[in-house]
Amino acid sequence: MKEINIGLCGLGTVGTGVVKILKNHQDEIMYKLGSQIAIKKVLVHDIHKQRDVVVDQEWLTNDPEELVSNPDIDVIVEVMGGIEDTNLLMEQALRNNKHIVTANKDLMAVHGQKLLRLAKANNCDIYYDASVAGGIPILRTLSDGLASDRIQKIMGIVNGTTNYILTKMTDDKLAFDDVLKEAQELGFAEADPTSDVEGLDAARKMTLLANLAFKMEISLDDVETSGIRDISQEDISFATSLGYTIKLIGIASINNGKVEVSVEPTLLPQDHPLALVKNEYNAVYVYGEAVGETMFYGPGAGSMPTATAVVSDLMEVIKNIRLGISGNAYVSPQYEKLLKENKEKYTKYFIRMAVEDEAGTFQKITNVFSDEKVSFAKILQLPGSEKETAEIVMVTHQISKQQLINSLEHLKGLSVVNRIISYYRVDGEE
Amino acid sequence: MKEINIGLCGLGTVGTGVVKILKNHQDEIMYKLGSQIAIKKVLVHDIHKQRDVVVDQEWLTNDPEELVSNPDIDVIVEVMGGIEDTNLLMEQALRNNKHIVTANKDLMAVHGQKLLRLAKANNCDIYYDASVAGGIPILRTLSDGLASDRIQKIMGIVNGTTNYILTKMTDDKLAFDDVLKEAQELGFAEADPTSDVEGLDAARKMTLLANLAFKMEISLDDVETSGIRDISQEDISFATSLGYTIKLIGIASINNGKVEVSVEPTLLPQDHPLALVKNEYNAVYVYGEAVGETMFYGPGAGSMPTATAVVSDLMEVIKNIRLGISGNAYVSPQYEKLLKENKEKYTKYFIRMAVEDEAGTFQKITNVFSDEKVSFAKILQLPGSEKETAEIVMVTHQISKQQLINSLEHLKGLSVVNRIISYYRVDGEE
Repeated sequence: MKEINIGLCGLGTVGTGVVKILKNHQDEIMYKLGSQIAIKKVLVHDIHKQRDVVVDQEWLTNDPEELVSNPDIDVIVEVMGGIEDTNLLMEQALRNNKHIVTANKDLMAVHGQKLLRLAKANNCDIYYDASVAGGIPILRTLSDGLASDRIQKIMGIVNGTTNYILTKMTDDKLAFDDVLKEAQELGFAEADPTSDVEGLDAARKMTLLANLAFKMEISLDDVETSGIRDISQEDISFATSLGYTIKLIGIASINNGKVEVSVEPTLLPQDHPLALVKNEYNAVYVYGEAVGETMFYGPGAGSMPTATAVVSDLMEVIKNIRLGISGNAYVSPQYEKLLKENKEKYTKYFIRMAVEDEAGTFQKITNVFSDEKVSFAKILQLPGSEKETAEIVMVTHQISKQQLINSLEHLKGLSVVNRIISYYRVDGEE
Repeated sequence: MKEINIGLCGLGTVGTGVVKILKNHQDEIMYKLGSQIAIKKVLVHDIHKQRDVVVDQEWLTNDPEELVSNPDIDVIVEVMGGIEDTNLLMEQALRNNKHIVTANKDLMAVHGQKLLRLAKANNCDIYYDASVAGGIPILRTLSDGLASDRIQKIMGIVNGTTNYILTKMTDDKLAFDDVLKEAQELGFAEADPTSDVEGLDAARKMTLLANLAFKMEISLDDVETSGIRDISQEDISFATSLGYTIKLIGIASINNGKVEVSVEPTLLPQDHPLALVKNEYNAVYVYGEAVGETMFYGPGAGSMPTATAVVSDLMEVIKNIRLGISGNAYVSPQYEKLLKENKEKYTKYFIRMAVEDEAGTFQKITNVFSDEKVSFAKILQLPGSEKETAEIVMVTHQISKQQLINSLEHLKGLSVVNRIISYYRVDGEE
């Protein structure tokens, strides 16, 4: 029985985890695969550095050629990170007919479609489940499920840092800046948290999920993205009193062949399964035509969960090699990209505004909405922070994004409306 | 490329769903498998009955021999139910080297280990993911994960009927009997609900999960099972006021090679992910050594979710045929069965008792517990339903089941204790 040889790019915490798992689970892997896996080469910066895992000195190299152009190597396992240089290396590996397993979401979000096409042209696989949600095998589950079901909607909490921050802001009533500082101290947030808190990291993951689920080539630019920096304690407190929890939710949905992908702060009913996903945990909620609602919950990151996902992907790649179906795993885009227009995007909205506390204010505001055919499920009015002002909080019924935009535009023109304080999507209700 | 021929036993709602999926997803299946799937024979009672799916009249037969002894058939898909007759038929199929996909948990819980051994001896697969939690691919996920991780604990809501009843009792404050009647009218509970409400159905599923997770031959008799019939509105109301939700939870855990499997009403913190699994939904929470906490949520039953799971299993079986690793999928028991004794089963308990409202009562009770080295996290005392009586509700810290049994025994001997009203496991807290 053929032994499968791998080249491991990177020996940080994830790479070390991969080496440990392959060593400790040899028997189980042989049993499940009918093949042994052997590490042939490991790409590192410093071949003399002390390692906290036993690696054969013979394996170590700082020359990528010894991996990507090595005729003995079948699969490249990329756990070193980086975008442009790594992309060139992976392209070279694919041209040399190496399969790839990667945990690198930045690489896949930027160059994924090109790499997947190149892989297919060379009958190679790229597996990247570890890049999306660490310990949750979501790409595999979607991909397996897709063979016998059609996905209509995905809602995901796919960024641990922002979920941690929102959890602390909600449960401990702390301000955004204070929680961010704490998260940075605990290592849950990076020194430059922009990519997380602005929603970019989540948008990258939603791109990968949407491409797979809808078989369209959706790019990062197609994802409407807004982050959590402007969410205030007042927003959270109003949301809570109306029975909602605010989460940063990635949404990908399809209706009549048209797709919408977004990442934005979203109010969910407190008894929605995603509302209880706390701290740094991730979860992905999937609505399939046949199966209905399913949810997958787990650690979104961490070196051992990620290493476990990498090894699972590696095993799938090896199965495909032996089945002779390499390059078929992820269905390449089959449909022309069709994005929903604003008038086709339907959801509910939470809208909060500061108004003059004078006779007729409420009527002027409701006239605007009724002109746009917007109706409401919930309305709160209460004294504003300044004298002779009030605050109005409303939750609409299902309306189009265009109706929202038009209504907000008209409201801003009313003299009795001092300011639109905030507005958020409301989802997950009947 | 070889076409794979299947024999379908049963053409009820699930069987019809399987036929539909195979027809509607031909291209995706070919793409994912590199093989076509053809239905060769369908076993039905009445070959002339009108069907709501187009089946070739040639396929239909009421003679099982045409399936299980048919040299052209590779895989038997069993979706007809039944235990003893079905078991004999499946044994015959395995002896004739047919692989099996089944959605029949009763069959697998009773005869599963024997069938799996027979399958292995004939290098055949039995896949039965559809039997455990309908739309949740939990066996596959455990089995894939096991190749690179070790499972320490599983907690599952694996019976939709009891979860529906408990949800209604909690949210709508209805009595057990009233909700049961409603559930029966809605088709969520059977006319004879014994197997569901006594926990037997859940125990069968936990047996299947525990066997797979711990690679031991655990039988239904090893599962300590208690149902939900005695849960009162007062229990639910005390649990709620202490911050808990009562669920019927199946638990399978391993410590130092010793296993505990149980199904019993359990109090979970209201912010535990399983606490929000409502109505007829199922969910399985898994703690893996490397991955940490993951949860899989979805419909526990229903004909389309089950049919989708059957087709997914069928695709795995076909992959294995082509890989030449049939019979390896589910690891057969590798370890001797070792069950935890009561003194090795650790958890917290909720205990509720009716006592005399007189001086010294509380001290006598706490003396009993302190003799058994049982300490408490929460204590409530309040007036009882009768004059000069009181009710005490306590939540212990972690204690052994033996400590619980000893304490309850001693409490019953105290004249100031009128009755132990109820006691439940408390789990899911730090």
